[in-house]
Amino acid sequence: MNPRIAAAAEAFGTPAYVYDLDGLRARVAWLHRLFDGRLQVSYAVKANPNGAVLAALSGHVTTLDVSSIGEVERALRAGWSAADLTFSGPAKRDFELRRAVEVGVGELVCESVEELDALQALGRPVSVLLRVNPLRMPKGFGAKMSGASQFGIDEEAVDAVIDALREGRWPLLTLVGIHVYSGSNSLDPDAIAENFSIFADIYRHCAERWGRPLHRLILGSGFGIPYRDGVEPLDVEAVAERVRPVLDGILAHPLLAEASCTLEMGRWLVGPVGWFVVKVLRVKHSRGTDLAICDGGMNNHLAACGLMGMVVRRNYPMGKVRGADEPIGTYTLVGPLCTTIDTLAVKVELGALAPGDLVAVGSSGAYGLTSSPTAFISHPAPREVALEGGGHRDITEVG
Amino acid sequence: MNPRIAAAAEAFGTPAYVYDLDGLRARVAWLHRLFDGRLQVSYAVKANPNGAVLAALSGHVTTLDVSSIGEVERALRAGWSAADLTFSGPAKRDFELRRAVEVGVGELVCESVEELDALQALGRPVSVLLRVNPLRMPKGFGAKMSGASQFGIDEEAVDAVIDALREGRWPLLTLVGIHVYSGSNSLDPDAIAENFSIFADIYRHCAERWGRPLHRLILGSGFGIPYRDGVEPLDVEAVAERVRPVLDGILAHPLLAEASCTLEMGRWLVGPVGWFVVKVLRVKHSRGTDLAICDGGMNNHLAACGLMGMVVRRNYPMGKVRGADEPIGTYTLVGPLCTTIDTLAVKVELGALAPGDLVAVGSSGAYGLTSSPTAFISHPAPREVALEGGGHRDITEVG
Repeated sequence: MNPRIAAAAEAFGTPAYVYDLDGLRARVAWLHRLFDGRLQVSYAVKANPNGAVLAALSGHVTTLDVSSIGEVERALRAGWSAADLTFSGPAKRDFELRRAVEVGVGELVCESVEELDALQALGRPVSVLLRVNPLRMPKGFGAKMSGASQFGIDEEAVDAVIDALREGRWPLLTLVGIHVYSGSNSLDPDAIAENFSIFADIYRHCAERWGRPLHRLILGSGFGIPYRDGVEPLDVEAVAERVRPVLDGILAHPLLAEASCTLEMGRWLVGPVGWFVVKVLRVKHSRGTDLAICDGGMNNHLAACGLMGMVVRRNYPMGKVRGADEPIGTYTLVGPLCTTIDTLAVKVELGALAPGDLVAVGSSGAYGLTSSPTAFISHPAPREVALEGGGHRDITEVG
Repeated sequence: MNPRIAAAAEAFGTPAYVYDLDGLRARVAWLHRLFDGRLQVSYAVKANPNGAVLAALSGHVTTLDVSSIGEVERALRAGWSAADLTFSGPAKRDFELRRAVEVGVGELVCESVEELDALQALGRPVSVLLRVNPLRMPKGFGAKMSGASQFGIDEEAVDAVIDALREGRWPLLTLVGIHVYSGSNSLDPDAIAENFSIFADIYRHCAERWGRPLHRLILGSGFGIPYRDGVEPLDVEAVAERVRPVLDGILAHPLLAEASCTLEMGRWLVGPVGWFVVKVLRVKHSRGTDLAICDGGMNNHLAACGLMGMVVRRNYPMGKVRGADEPIGTYTLVGPLCTTIDTLAVKVELGALAPGDLVAVGSSGAYGLTSSPTAFISHPAPREVALEGGGHRDITEVG
């Protein structure tokens, strides 16, 4: 376990989320190298909206994908220009669209005809992307957004929308590109590459229907990360190898030759560089089980407790922050709440635990703090700590 | 659907939680009538910690059960006296115990030997209850806290603790009673009564081991509520009929004759008098499914989205707030988030929906707002509205 995590958690107290911002930027750089300039990267704010995370990505990723006006405001506060924001989401309210246009959000991703109507009604020129909900999707994704879905315009309905755009039904809206995000959390390079081939067909079809060049193509990445010990990370070299020809094929189309292809991702970038660190408050032996009662649980990290839609509950990768070489014990880790579902790990092997010991839960940089019910049972909110340039600093925002 | 819910939600906007405080007090009164003075009621703050709810219960329930120092502070701010608080929870930190003793919290429920040590170390006299984790538990509860558990002292280990108390191992601590809460959310009167009989045996055993009178016996109620249409509410008349002789049996014991028996409950009291009201933003037909996209979802009501430990996802009882007599449609209700798990209902029958319509989700007064990840994707927090005395008022606390 990285000793910088221990120092960071000890500096500001537990429970704490620790994010390695240098590691985050290194992952962006890695992607750029792998795709050799063919792909820009857009960071999905929903994965981790902490202002320090957003600021750390400035100058490293090209755009931020935001999914609420609250995320727009966060991005602006973190120093991003509104022009570099892409606003997606199936339920944008009128006040959100109005404010987004007012502050000059660069691109609106429209997910329905009604949204195009609402944007037109604002009375200002707007650049829009259409989000398309594909008919086909390969196996191998953790979550699928295709099928009957609130996300995007069904592929079989998109021709009519493009025709109406071309014929001037929404004269203030300029179609600049297409957005597809149909699956997330895949560890299978073949599935990701096959999905991108499906996207490529959609882009080509839409460009031809539109009859003019498209400038922006957003590929929902679906790059996954391992959520338990013993699972290999996604082989991104293999992904890049399979995807590069797909991208070349897109850019070979005359209407797409000038298009910028953008990989939208959150989990893969920030997930692996975040840890949730808890302190053991009590170790209790009850009926054959060694329980470690910790100062944070489902109130701080819902996903690690198996409560974010997982079919089978599994232990996240985790380790004792110091002294992992000690004799090993088998523990069930529970949080501080008065409910049986507050369980961070079941029968996990860790270095022997005593009150005061710290345990770090890995793969916790994405969908951690903000997707957890921090107010449940009124415990203090966790700290958020950044590792950067050899030091650490408190970047807590909630609570 | 109660027209007062519509008026309340429309007064302050959606998404909104609406709580009927008169209805809440009526349920307390009903319990008191049913148990004919044999039982006091303690309200479990964790179920719904809104200050207006806590204030509404003042003078109606005898005590509040709190499970964090944050809940102690909430209760004090709502006008409760510290003396009328019972502090339980398996992970009380030293700063919480210190503060609780400082402000004069009436009773500490100790869940482990280590906690007795920590309390003794504070250097002040404290009244304690021991929480016992029973060996036996009937079927018929939604969640079980017995077996190997962080909750309480295992029944088979309690004799040694009582002996040590009697022999003065913790001279500042006075044992005043026993607390048992081993299961929650049961709709089966026989199971509840059988469980209370198990509690009664534990109380008698502990009193005899202690050899002196016990004054406080807390019965974790486990009273459930229906979470879907077509399920009958718990027959509390039947519960009372079966439980009254159990209580009489407890009070017949010479060491328990002066004991106050307290029913600790949250869900049954406040769950049925709360609704979560969302507005339909868009109605979208996608591949054979009518989707209603709403302005609140899992970010506001995690449990209704099936993400609070349910094995099988079911639709909560719900209805259109106005116009329920119209032709019926079958809808999948989703929230505003960019994730497939943000689903409030799957193929539910409701009055035909159009943008602007309101849908109220019932059984939402307990484990609603505070057990949900309100910061997820940075949408505005819902309002909280109280119905009381024929009027309504904004009681929003979060966001």
